[in-house]
Amino acid sequence: MTIIVQKFGGSSLATVDLIKKAALRVRTEVEAGNQVVVVLSAMGGMTDRLVEFVRELSTAYDRSEYDTVVSAGEQVSVGLMAMALKNMGLSARSWLGWQIPIQTSNIHSSAKIENVSIDKIQQSLDQREVAVVAGFQGISPQGRITTLGRGGSDTTAVALAAALQAERCDIYTDVEGVYTADPRFVSKAGKLDQIAYDEMLELASQGAKVLQRDSVQLAMKHQVPLRVLSSLTMAPGTVISKDCEATGPQIRGVVQSFSECKVQLKDISHDAIEHLSSVLNEAGITMDMPSHSLTPFASRWDYSFTVPEEDRLQAVKLLNLTVEKKKFSTITSDINVARISIVGPYLSENPNLVQKLFHTLAEKGIQVQDVSTSDIKISVLVKKADSEKALSALHTAYNLDVK
Amino acid sequence: MTIIVQKFGGSSLATVDLIKKAALRVRTEVEAGNQVVVVLSAMGGMTDRLVEFVRELSTAYDRSEYDTVVSAGEQVSVGLMAMALKNMGLSARSWLGWQIPIQTSNIHSSAKIENVSIDKIQQSLDQREVAVVAGFQGISPQGRITTLGRGGSDTTAVALAAALQAERCDIYTDVEGVYTADPRFVSKAGKLDQIAYDEMLELASQGAKVLQRDSVQLAMKHQVPLRVLSSLTMAPGTVISKDCEATGPQIRGVVQSFSECKVQLKDISHDAIEHLSSVLNEAGITMDMPSHSLTPFASRWDYSFTVPEEDRLQAVKLLNLTVEKKKFSTITSDINVARISIVGPYLSENPNLVQKLFHTLAEKGIQVQDVSTSDIKISVLVKKADSEKALSALHTAYNLDVK
Repeated sequence: MTIIVQKFGGSSLATVDLIKKAALRVRTEVEAGNQVVVVLSAMGGMTDRLVEFVRELSTAYDRSEYDTVVSAGEQVSVGLMAMALKNMGLSARSWLGWQIPIQTSNIHSSAKIENVSIDKIQQSLDQREVAVVAGFQGISPQGRITTLGRGGSDTTAVALAAALQAERCDIYTDVEGVYTADPRFVSKAGKLDQIAYDEMLELASQGAKVLQRDSVQLAMKHQVPLRVLSSLTMAPGTVISKDCEATGPQIRGVVQSFSECKVQLKDISHDAIEHLSSVLNEAGITMDMPSHSLTPFASRWDYSFTVPEEDRLQAVKLLNLTVEKKKFSTITSDINVARISIVGPYLSENPNLVQKLFHTLAEKGIQVQDVSTSDIKISVLVKKADSEKALSALHTAYNLDVK
Repeated sequence: MTIIVQKFGGSSLATVDLIKKAALRVRTEVEAGNQVVVVLSAMGGMTDRLVEFVRELSTAYDRSEYDTVVSAGEQVSVGLMAMALKNMGLSARSWLGWQIPIQTSNIHSSAKIENVSIDKIQQSLDQREVAVVAGFQGISPQGRITTLGRGGSDTTAVALAAALQAERCDIYTDVEGVYTADPRFVSKAGKLDQIAYDEMLELASQGAKVLQRDSVQLAMKHQVPLRVLSSLTMAPGTVISKDCEATGPQIRGVVQSFSECKVQLKDISHDAIEHLSSVLNEAGITMDMPSHSLTPFASRWDYSFTVPEEDRLQAVKLLNLTVEKKKFSTITSDINVARISIVGPYLSENPNLVQKLFHTLAEKGIQVQDVSTSDIKISVLVKKADSEKALSALHTAYNLDVK
């Protein structure tokens, strides 16, 4: 029989009434003769409230206990959804991460799924039960509850779809699909009918929040057909798959991210750059958008890069330990930056598309601080205050504005 | 080493600040050189909110999913408490029912503890960790989360204390101990310094909410020294143990319960009484305070008894099926009743104490509808409207009023 995975996000489950509405979508798939796995986030707002408790308690909290606390949200929503489905006369039961089990790595709060056992779920489906699975959570080798990072329920859904060889994985959310830009910032953003895995992966990596990055990577690896669609309308959504019409070079989307911090080091030797790179790497801090001055003075350069904003304090602390050893003269860190990225097929092969980026920003008087590229993406670092202007200007320049 | 079990109720954990205060009590025991197991309820109000979600969804909910939903509350509090203890520099970790495991029967929402594995907890204690255990929850033979009924965290605490052969089980709550009557209704109620297990069991059975009935029964069975005390003051609380000074007949406490419903059947045969008793028994409905008219008319009696109010609808439905078979003529059910009980040692051997009950109520013009007795308890059924008056009058009559 055909297996369909349906994932509902927190905004689609924020009240008991919305849970009942989501249950109707599940019934539709069951009545169409499918075996259905439902993956749920916590009810909208609940995870935030739980995180607030943790923050009230301490800034330096234990991540394994954090996971125990925040995973409670999904436990509530799966129990309620199973009840709602039963009230409709369907057969259903809830599944927690440890019950399936969904085995993960031991990295609490950003664990990776290592194995999904499908025996019990398949058995449940074969008994014509809807399997209602708690997203976001798994179990560590030590038998503790782990979580997959914010948005991790997307990854739970894709992992189950891959393991169960599902026909399709539908991600229900509060927007109608994947957009050419975030509609909250760009009013003329348009919905994409389809997009390729690798392009969606770049959009998610560069700051698009509609899907968790890991979930797209997993879908690409296992060729799971994904669809992003609204839980509130009947619009067809966006299909994400391998085969996507890309008749030529074009820009799929423009995306901004505010989660970077720019670090600048003055008067640093080449050896020192290598040294500090390995120091940050060992601490698990990702450096991005590296850039150094073109001409050295006395074999010393100015050097800058970005780190995730959440790692800022630790990065500066580690670098200051290096400063004490006279490796460089001054360090500045700046969170008033935004990373703007354009994503599209054949981008690196098309100098015209690249040039348009710089031309457009220059025309608007927006200074580009740093650049990084891949085959299907160009990112630039600009002042945070310039971000929305840059986003809109590029959206227009690449003919993405909805008429 | 000496093991101490400390249990904190929801009102002692209602905010993050209160959790920190409770953590200080834990630290005191650790600093005194004890191995400490902490058992927690959900943060005050959280279980009610989760139950509210379930009620919003449906009146006829699935009890296994109900357990999945409501057990999330304790999961949150143990994670937060473990964090709070770690912030104080103590070693600690949270334990959920399924992680220990605490194995229970399969009766969801009112499961009984069948086995507590102590290996992992003992290992944790031996590593000088505080074991922070989620109360109220266990795991069924089918691997589902079960709950022990409202107040079930008391039972979790006593079960752990018994299994670990703890020196003492301290129940922290929002009152200073066990009182001669509920201080919310009887302003002159006084705190008891000590009480015997069997007397406490009768108080809990007859409606005192300070401890769950099952927890007292378990403590009595395993001779676990119990103490009920306030989490907010340093008062010594009430000790509950086997050896309790009882120099002579006296009344320990007066308690009211509003959770009964009186069922009256007119014109019923003796055979029919036996039949309906077995029908209700099979449905798991407890009959209490049975009473029938002294003289039959044509071998048929009038018969009354009480059932728990929550079972009222089901009981009347089952009895009406019997009515169709002409087993009796009319059925009435009345929830406007209260059960008033007095509890004390040597009660049944002292007619004077018993007589004082009826004399006092008669003097106040309160009609006694039914009576039931045990060695250490007398219960009477009165009109709900008379309950508080009866409670206060008996409290005064038995010299329990605090001077």
